[in-house]
Amino acid sequence: MQTGLGRRDSGKQGRAAQRLGIVGGAGSWGFAGADLALAAEASPGQLPNPELVVTSWGLTLAGAVISLIFAAKFFRGMVRADPGDPQMIRIADAVRAGARAYLGQQYRVILLFFIVVSALLAAMAFGLKTQSRWVPLAFWTGGFFSGLAGWIGMRTATLASSRTAQACKTSLNQGLQVAFRSGAVMGLTVVGLGLCDICLWFAILYWGVQLPLETVTVTMLCCVMGASSQALFARVGGGIFTKAADVGADLVGKVEQGIPEDDPRNPATIADNVGDNVGDVAGMGADLYESFAGSILAAAALGVSAFPQTPDLQMMCVLLPLLLAATGSLLSILGIHLVHTEEHASQHHLLHALARGINISTAGVIVATFGLVYLLLVVPSRTAVLPDGSPHPVGLALLGLAGSIIVGLVAGWLIGKWTEYSTSQEYSPTRHIADQSLTGPATVIIAGMAEGLYSVWVPVVVVCAGILLAFGFATGFVYHDDRLFALGLYGVAIAAVGMLSTLGITLATDAYGPIADNAGGNAEMSKLDPIVRHRTDALDSLGNTTAATGKGFAIGSAALTALALLAAYVEQVRTGLERWAFNSPAVAVSSSLEDATIRKLNPSLLVLRQSEADLNTLYLLNRTSALHPSADYVLSRDARVGADVAGVNVQKLVDDGLLISNRTATIPDYARYYDLSILNPRVLVGMFLGVMLVFVFCALTMKAVGRAAGAMVAEVRRQFHANAGIMLGTSDPDYAACVEISTKAAQREMVLPSVLALLVPVVVGVLLGVSGVVGMLAGGLSSGFAVAIMMANAGGAWDNAKKYIESGAHGGKGTEAHKATVVGDTVGDPFKDTSGPSLNILIKLMSIVSVVFAGLVVQYAVQIF
Amino acid sequence: MQTGLGRRDSGKQGRAAQRLGIVGGAGSWGFAGADLALAAEASPGQLPNPELVVTSWGLTLAGAVISLIFAAKFFRGMVRADPGDPQMIRIADAVRAGARAYLGQQYRVILLFFIVVSALLAAMAFGLKTQSRWVPLAFWTGGFFSGLAGWIGMRTATLASSRTAQACKTSLNQGLQVAFRSGAVMGLTVVGLGLCDICLWFAILYWGVQLPLETVTVTMLCCVMGASSQALFARVGGGIFTKAADVGADLVGKVEQGIPEDDPRNPATIADNVGDNVGDVAGMGADLYESFAGSILAAAALGVSAFPQTPDLQMMCVLLPLLLAATGSLLSILGIHLVHTEEHASQHHLLHALARGINISTAGVIVATFGLVYLLLVVPSRTAVLPDGSPHPVGLALLGLAGSIIVGLVAGWLIGKWTEYSTSQEYSPTRHIADQSLTGPATVIIAGMAEGLYSVWVPVVVVCAGILLAFGFATGFVYHDDRLFALGLYGVAIAAVGMLSTLGITLATDAYGPIADNAGGNAEMSKLDPIVRHRTDALDSLGNTTAATGKGFAIGSAALTALALLAAYVEQVRTGLERWAFNSPAVAVSSSLEDATIRKLNPSLLVLRQSEADLNTLYLLNRTSALHPSADYVLSRDARVGADVAGVNVQKLVDDGLLISNRTATIPDYARYYDLSILNPRVLVGMFLGVMLVFVFCALTMKAVGRAAGAMVAEVRRQFHANAGIMLGTSDPDYAACVEISTKAAQREMVLPSVLALLVPVVVGVLLGVSGVVGMLAGGLSSGFAVAIMMANAGGAWDNAKKYIESGAHGGKGTEAHKATVVGDTVGDPFKDTSGPSLNILIKLMSIVSVVFAGLVVQYAVQIF
Repeated sequence: MQTGLGRRDSGKQGRAAQRLGIVGGAGSWGFAGADLALAAEASPGQLPNPELVVTSWGLTLAGAVISLIFAAKFFRGMVRADPGDPQMIRIADAVRAGARAYLGQQYRVILLFFIVVSALLAAMAFGLKTQSRWVPLAFWTGGFFSGLAGWIGMRTATLASSRTAQACKTSLNQGLQVAFRSGAVMGLTVVGLGLCDICLWFAILYWGVQLPLETVTVTMLCCVMGASSQALFARVGGGIFTKAADVGADLVGKVEQGIPEDDPRNPATIADNVGDNVGDVAGMGADLYESFAGSILAAAALGVSAFPQTPDLQMMCVLLPLLLAATGSLLSILGIHLVHTEEHASQHHLLHALARGINISTAGVIVATFGLVYLLLVVPSRTAVLPDGSPHPVGLALLGLAGSIIVGLVAGWLIGKWTEYSTSQEYSPTRHIADQSLTGPATVIIAGMAEGLYSVWVPVVVVCAGILLAFGFATGFVYHDDRLFALGLYGVAIAAVGMLSTLGITLATDAYGPIADNAGGNAEMSKLDPIVRHRTDALDSLGNTTAATGKGFAIGSAALTALALLAAYVEQVRTGLERWAFNSPAVAVSSSLEDATIRKLNPSLLVLRQSEADLNTLYLLNRTSALHPSADYVLSRDARVGADVAGVNVQKLVDDGLLISNRTATIPDYARYYDLSILNPRVLVGMFLGVMLVFVFCALTMKAVGRAAGAMVAEVRRQFHANAGIMLGTSDPDYAACVEISTKAAQREMVLPSVLALLVPVVVGVLLGVSGVVGMLAGGLSSGFAVAIMMANAGGAWDNAKKYIESGAHGGKGTEAHKATVVGDTVGDPFKDTSGPSLNILIKLMSIVSVVFAGLVVQYAVQIF
Repeated sequence: MQTGLGRRDSGKQGRAAQRLGIVGGAGSWGFAGADLALAAEASPGQLPNPELVVTSWGLTLAGAVISLIFAAKFFRGMVRADPGDPQMIRIADAVRAGARAYLGQQYRVILLFFIVVSALLAAMAFGLKTQSRWVPLAFWTGGFFSGLAGWIGMRTATLASSRTAQACKTSLNQGLQVAFRSGAVMGLTVVGLGLCDICLWFAILYWGVQLPLETVTVTMLCCVMGASSQALFARVGGGIFTKAADVGADLVGKVEQGIPEDDPRNPATIADNVGDNVGDVAGMGADLYESFAGSILAAAALGVSAFPQTPDLQMMCVLLPLLLAATGSLLSILGIHLVHTEEHASQHHLLHALARGINISTAGVIVATFGLVYLLLVVPSRTAVLPDGSPHPVGLALLGLAGSIIVGLVAGWLIGKWTEYSTSQEYSPTRHIADQSLTGPATVIIAGMAEGLYSVWVPVVVVCAGILLAFGFATGFVYHDDRLFALGLYGVAIAAVGMLSTLGITLATDAYGPIADNAGGNAEMSKLDPIVRHRTDALDSLGNTTAATGKGFAIGSAALTALALLAAYVEQVRTGLERWAFNSPAVAVSSSLEDATIRKLNPSLLVLRQSEADLNTLYLLNRTSALHPSADYVLSRDARVGADVAGVNVQKLVDDGLLISNRTATIPDYARYYDLSILNPRVLVGMFLGVMLVFVFCALTMKAVGRAAGAMVAEVRRQFHANAGIMLGTSDPDYAACVEISTKAAQREMVLPSVLALLVPVVVGVLLGVSGVVGMLAGGLSSGFAVAIMMANAGGAWDNAKKYIESGAHGGKGTEAHKATVVGDTVGDPFKDTSGPSLNILIKLMSIVSVVFAGLVVQYAVQIF
């Protein structure tokens, strides 16, 4: 049976397999051999309207292409701007060369990593047959597009810095236009590339290879693993690079030698500016690419399981997140165009202009959401079929999904506002930290830690409410019906897509901050008029405020997406089980379900086969609290693994709920089968290990920053010591040596934490099985979310407390109070720029690795315990 | 029915109730009215041998009394020692007066709190009838004994400080004897009082009121809530007091005025020494009292559910933790006596002497464990009856429980050793932090945070392995049998008791550190020969090493006990449900289970009544995956809440596992009934909220320290400013004002975090129901454990990094490097002495509050979601 598949002429089995979507359609590539359908056989409902699918797909692709066209337009506009005087160009070139060299080096390491991992994935797909053969390829494209988004962001930012500085010579508004449009390049590139990648894979798998929808969405989800790996390397590597350079430049230059920030005499100053580009810009691009694609694909995967027996609704649930994202991207372009002010606008006006852009995009998405849900879901459908085969009237009830999407948008906005409150110098938490500087650095650190820990409560409560409401809107506030459970989780997933739908503009407001920062560096090093630096600082500070909102969306969506991936993991377990049954040797054909011959695959998995032309069907033997279980149940339960048992009344066992078909099992069925209860020691141990992974991951990244910064400090000291001309300004420092040190350190140090994040989920899976993995994901998600917020907010508040004092509070620059806040800022650097943002990716990477390796875990877990 | 109970002459119902243990025996106090038996009716097995019960109880009480006698002996011995010269006595008196005043004030606040909470508990017990009427009283005794342990510890420590200093004039060994024996007073007091409290309640409830064993253990567990509340106040209040004084004294005295630690000219110096006594000593006493009693009572409660149908084994499982703890206390006394050395022993020899004491006690417990388990469990039993009524051969298999106990001891030892590695200046983590001082305070903080986060991995892995192994040893490494599940959890609980069994001596080695520290302060202020201070420092440093082991036992046992309490919570849910059924109006009598009349209590709870003489029987309507559930199931499921349905074949539904009797349901049955799966949104939301509670609790305690320290700094500065004579040594500072400030601040600040810890579990329970509570407990446990270790280890490492530099590394005292580590130490103070230790209590208090309020939650949860 294994060998006959993948060919159209393999007789009866081949035809059955084709009907089930196991072999390809037109192309019939060998690749499709082991890709299985789950519910195709049982689906009685209406098939999706092909025209509607093509139209929706086309509109999504159009949204993606339009985003990329506008990104290109903004890019060309930025390139045409005046790049400034030769000194400015020289410095920008040096930064660009450093960033390019670093990213090139980083991509080489990642390439190696991708080769190793995809070889493993290929071994699993082709050798062990525990997953789709498309996974290795999907892994590559996700990684490629994510890396490309980072690269384009870096290239744009490095070209934009001198141009922004030049524009700031004219006015604040001119500077904003250059910087913000450059940020928009990144926002629209991420959105456009993400949607292109998804559309491409959908076309290949659904129309090209003609896989069933279940397999299409689950395979596409594996793209996210490539993107997540790329993003983790980019965030960890870039974070280490930038903070090593930053800490090195500050500690020796500012503190020991007493020269100002971005002084060209500081050997680490170019490395510092390179760091902003590779960490804050390229890292952020790869990160948000992963968030964006991940949320859409997780929602699509859950959309399939929301209505497993109603193919047209299934398809619409898959298309909804795509169209929502495409709509959001178009409204983002509109919003970006609305950001303009009068020539001599104040900072206050600029903030309003930015807020107007975001608000109009968001309002547009809310309105469009109702239209989309109405047209895609409400109009075509009147009745869905639930997993137990019972009809379920849907129609207008599905409008609730619009509620879920709006819940996502509102939750993101609330977290953003709270982030702003927790970290802005306008509000009491940051001012309180600044006040503590009067009693020295220790009290600044204690206050910052306390404020960071405290700031966790609002995002947690908002996400909790968001989960419950998004779930509730989707199901009509029915929380207890197993058959609606997947629909509820789809509501949570689509809420995450809603949160990220305006990414085009929110990322633009986030990404222009580092550009303005770099422009300031350029102005300082090029010894421009102080008014230029003043204006770039104003832009940077403006960026910090709007970036808070962007970060709120990113962090909130990470939690919701990770939760959706947790559910998608269970769906992937279903596929893994099906694959196992499919790859098992053929079972004797049973003439009827009333008198069937079953084969025990493991103590609680049975397979049977209804006809020659059919595939093995897998059944889960449910746990029961029955005092007197039926004879058939006892027979099935006590049979030896590998044995065939004849004469079992499977139909009766299914009717009684003691056997569950793997094709119609609901997510709560799996929860019972695998005992995913918190009281299960394996789940609890998994939770502890998930929490541990978060803590150790933070520790490793912080230690890496410490070591890299130590090397940088030594090098900068060595240069000042060896060449007295540097301080006198008579000879240039060796900038390249510092870039080299940061590059090497980042490459070396990023490997261990990243590999850990990939290995632990696999090891936990093999040792503790599915229940251990689910525990680990939940533990990692809940604690990782809290730690990430704590680190981001504490770091942001320390940074702004320092800026508050620099603006004149408590005596201003040069006082002991200022020095105390500099210590706080330095401690906050790895918090907010290395460990914190990486955690956001970690919690999703853990989930996605588990999803990809689910087939392996299902079949090969050792499960000593 | 409600009114007739509690009286022996209330006819048929009364007799039934008495048989079920609902009314009292001889005494027949009204109190016993609503205390229910769960399994008494169904218990077919052998009854426990009364002589064996009395003997075991008597031996435990004897162990308790002997511990108290030796505590008294050591106390008298210490009091007889030379208290030193008048100046020393004067200072010790001032410290004692301050500590007494503070504790008196604290107990007044706690008294108020206890009155409010016990009124609430009484309202629940007598009004809503959702819990045992003994709970309010049990709550008081737990709080009283815990507070008493703290008070005795404080009194001993304040008397011992000048005596230790005086003894150190002679030799190090003399000093060790006084300090260590004083520590032993606290260790043995905690153990003795804990066992006395337990023996007392057992006698009252089991023999006096003659409640069934299930009710006895669950009611006794409520003692722990009193002890936990007391401990939390003691740790939080004491922690705030001591750190406010410490930070205030250091920042103004040491840093601003440049006078050494414990200089009598520093106005905060007495407050600082008072703080050591109320925080480190009284707080620790209350804390470990709670851990000790909590682990024993959690194990006892699970012992009952391990063998619900085998009363003799049940009783032995309840007695095992008591006897184990009593044996451990006697072996601790032996170990304490073995701690002595030659007169002029080196520090190295002293360490060996202490280690010998602990090692011999531990080895003794390991040997005794086998004997106890053999005599109590293996000899009397051959066959147990499992929850489904099937026989289960036990006998020698129960020797596995000895394995569980040893797993606990080994796990505690491993965590202790790792704590020592992570925080001792002998090893690389602390030295690495010290090295970072060369680049300033920021890198010291980053390195300390990183090492603290990193240090989490070993304790987590050890606890995970401990959970799986303790569970496995108890069940013969069967992890999948629902019927053995409670036995497995009993294994985990008894492992925690094993870990704490040598508390008498480990607490002695932990508690003598602060005494030596105070002796040093006394020596400094009394201007004794520097050799005295040198010797007290040596004792203190020795104490730090041995205390690490003690902390390992405390923290490891907290995790295991909290897990046991999580399981006990589910047992309490069973009691809550039973109570609800009992308090419901009488249901029509069903003649047979085949043709029964049921009443719907809520959508999935049914009650029926088999005869006039009987009580309502509660059944849980199981969820089912059945495609065609039986007509009776559909009838029961779809009936209106409050309605009576006649003609239901209950027996068939039970046989099929669709209805489960509340009396025989296993813990996994409840997990399925309440859907405690991690994928349930309420569970997941609960987890997020549990993590949040941990973070916010830390934030509140740290902020409180910050505010209190700020007030102290202002006062100390004011005194130096107002009275120039202080620095000249011509006039005394106003010590009392500083004590007053710390006292007031601690009282004010300890309320909010403590109330939060009590309220959140109740609020989560009412809003999200049982599944939300279980999620919250799991989230709080896993993240709280990790955060507590991180804080304790980071704080300890910072402290020792400073000491390492003070011992001469990197230039020693007075250098910039030293200053940088002082910042680290100050940051670490609230980590290791306020927030960290409080978290240990928090995770248990959350569980115990949930246990106590389970009846309320079961019956009155709003469960909007």
